[in-house]
Amino acid sequence: MNRVERVRAGETAAIARMISRIERRSDGVADELAELHRAGGHAHIIGVTGAAGSGKSTLVAELTAHYRRAGRTVGVLAVDPSSVFTGGAILGDRIRMSALSGDTGVFIRSIATRGALGGLSRATLDAITVLDAAGKDVVVLETVGVGQAEVDVISAAQTVAVVSVPGMGDDVQAIKAGLLEIADVHVLNKADRDGAQKAYAELRDMLRLGRGSQGDWEVPIQRTVAATGEGVEELAGRFDAHRGWMSRSGELDRRLKRTAATRIRWMAEEIVLDRLRAGQPEFDREVDRVAELTTDPLHAARRLLGESAQLDVMGAS
Amino acid sequence: MNRVERVRAGETAAIARMISRIERRSDGVADELAELHRAGGHAHIIGVTGAAGSGKSTLVAELTAHYRRAGRTVGVLAVDPSSVFTGGAILGDRIRMSALSGDTGVFIRSIATRGALGGLSRATLDAITVLDAAGKDVVVLETVGVGQAEVDVISAAQTVAVVSVPGMGDDVQAIKAGLLEIADVHVLNKADRDGAQKAYAELRDMLRLGRGSQGDWEVPIQRTVAATGEGVEELAGRFDAHRGWMSRSGELDRRLKRTAATRIRWMAEEIVLDRLRAGQPEFDREVDRVAELTTDPLHAARRLLGESAQLDVMGAS
Repeated sequence: MNRVERVRAGETAAIARMISRIERRSDGVADELAELHRAGGHAHIIGVTGAAGSGKSTLVAELTAHYRRAGRTVGVLAVDPSSVFTGGAILGDRIRMSALSGDTGVFIRSIATRGALGGLSRATLDAITVLDAAGKDVVVLETVGVGQAEVDVISAAQTVAVVSVPGMGDDVQAIKAGLLEIADVHVLNKADRDGAQKAYAELRDMLRLGRGSQGDWEVPIQRTVAATGEGVEELAGRFDAHRGWMSRSGELDRRLKRTAATRIRWMAEEIVLDRLRAGQPEFDREVDRVAELTTDPLHAARRLLGESAQLDVMGAS
Repeated sequence: MNRVERVRAGETAAIARMISRIERRSDGVADELAELHRAGGHAHIIGVTGAAGSGKSTLVAELTAHYRRAGRTVGVLAVDPSSVFTGGAILGDRIRMSALSGDTGVFIRSIATRGALGGLSRATLDAITVLDAAGKDVVVLETVGVGQAEVDVISAAQTVAVVSVPGMGDDVQAIKAGLLEIADVHVLNKADRDGAQKAYAELRDMLRLGRGSQGDWEVPIQRTVAATGEGVEELAGRFDAHRGWMSRSGELDRRLKRTAATRIRWMAEEIVLDRLRAGQPEFDREVDRVAELTTDPLHAARRLLGESAQLDVMGAS
């Protein structure tokens, strides 16, 4: 079997190697990803986000264990650009997760920042493609924070859960405000703590004021205690309900198209920048002509992109 | 006369309007810029950079006054992404410059951040094209700081002056280290201050250790007191000497090519992103196909870029 076939057969080592190839942009990986993309479309892609300290990693571990008990295969991608600061907590959770690591039905991977955040976003989306093509029933994308890069990544999820905890004060308010737009399900974790009822009421009020429903999907608030597993089965039920609603309502198609548009744009940028590389004769020739003023950047770029690229740019004819 | 002709005739109002059109990306401006690009190539483009507090704006004002006395026309572009913080100082210097503002041989403009820094860099390079085509003998680009955006911008200059002042301690060292690579001329401003001799000796030692010469161009250190105009004439002489060396040595060609390469790349990205816009039938059709898994982002992007774009990307065949 070739690399793509091994991934499609769900071989853990092949999945890990393919994601490493993505991170390194190894030779041939673009074609492999193209093949994997066409083999996917099965997985439910769930994004879980929230502030550091919200117990999100523990929640993801419990959720994974729940899915496994239900006979569903799971891929987990932890995306944390700030992991150098929270390494301890993540390590602890990863050790917790390692109880699952002998299980070939689970694949867990942290994706670290290598260079630009844009690169991280692309690598993460490509890793989703791999896990989907490998036949995972559920792919969980775990991200921290509310930066643009995280929003880009989480936008690739079909169901987005935003995790908050009682008593984190104004910080949490800020995060909730930033993430309110993208939450399909709210999770109030550590719901056995003091102040949980107050936090629940605040969240509920915020949902009433803001976007608390999308069409006929009422954004629910699920209380959990990730440390004991309480509420985790119900949360998985919420996710299934959301996926069902997504399919019925046409919202799933809309999100798949949005992600497809993003990926085509990223790929086109990559192809173009790759093409316009010093040392390529046609690029160097245009550079000379622009430097000598016998042409200009607009017409040079148009020629390099081919005649068919002569579309309207900044109103150019 | 049309807009391009008015700019080429050096009309101040036409220059100002054209730069506003660039900032707003008005209809037709890409073609106008292409025409202006081919009409340029005359101006000496000088970049002046250094930390806030180095007196760089006062220096630019004095330099401009010097050039005017020598009968040379001048365009000044002040690029300051952090101007919200230093607005007071800049305003003060601009008022100082306004003594020159009745003079049609001078054009002064601040370019503010509108959206992304990438947008600022592009707008600045386009504004240089306008001032060059308008027949300015000298275009001075004034930037603060050492971020990547500033380095991108300053790279468009033919002669780069890095301004430092005595007694600013480690901060200045850091800045000097960051900018050492790109300095063609060092300016030690406020050279009448205590510690000027020590600062001069430090700069000289640093130049000896680092890149203090490029080919047979020895990077000079010019002492100035911008507030009194002392050393400004000599500084202008250094710039002329550098321009002469650039022409003779072939370095000017090298830099023009580097800038041309950057501009072609930026323009190509813009054309591509413009083309891959929702609502364009061929883009939407590819989005649908990627979402339905009948194709993948790589092949969709290739088709959208035209057959000729099928070059090697990430090792794809």
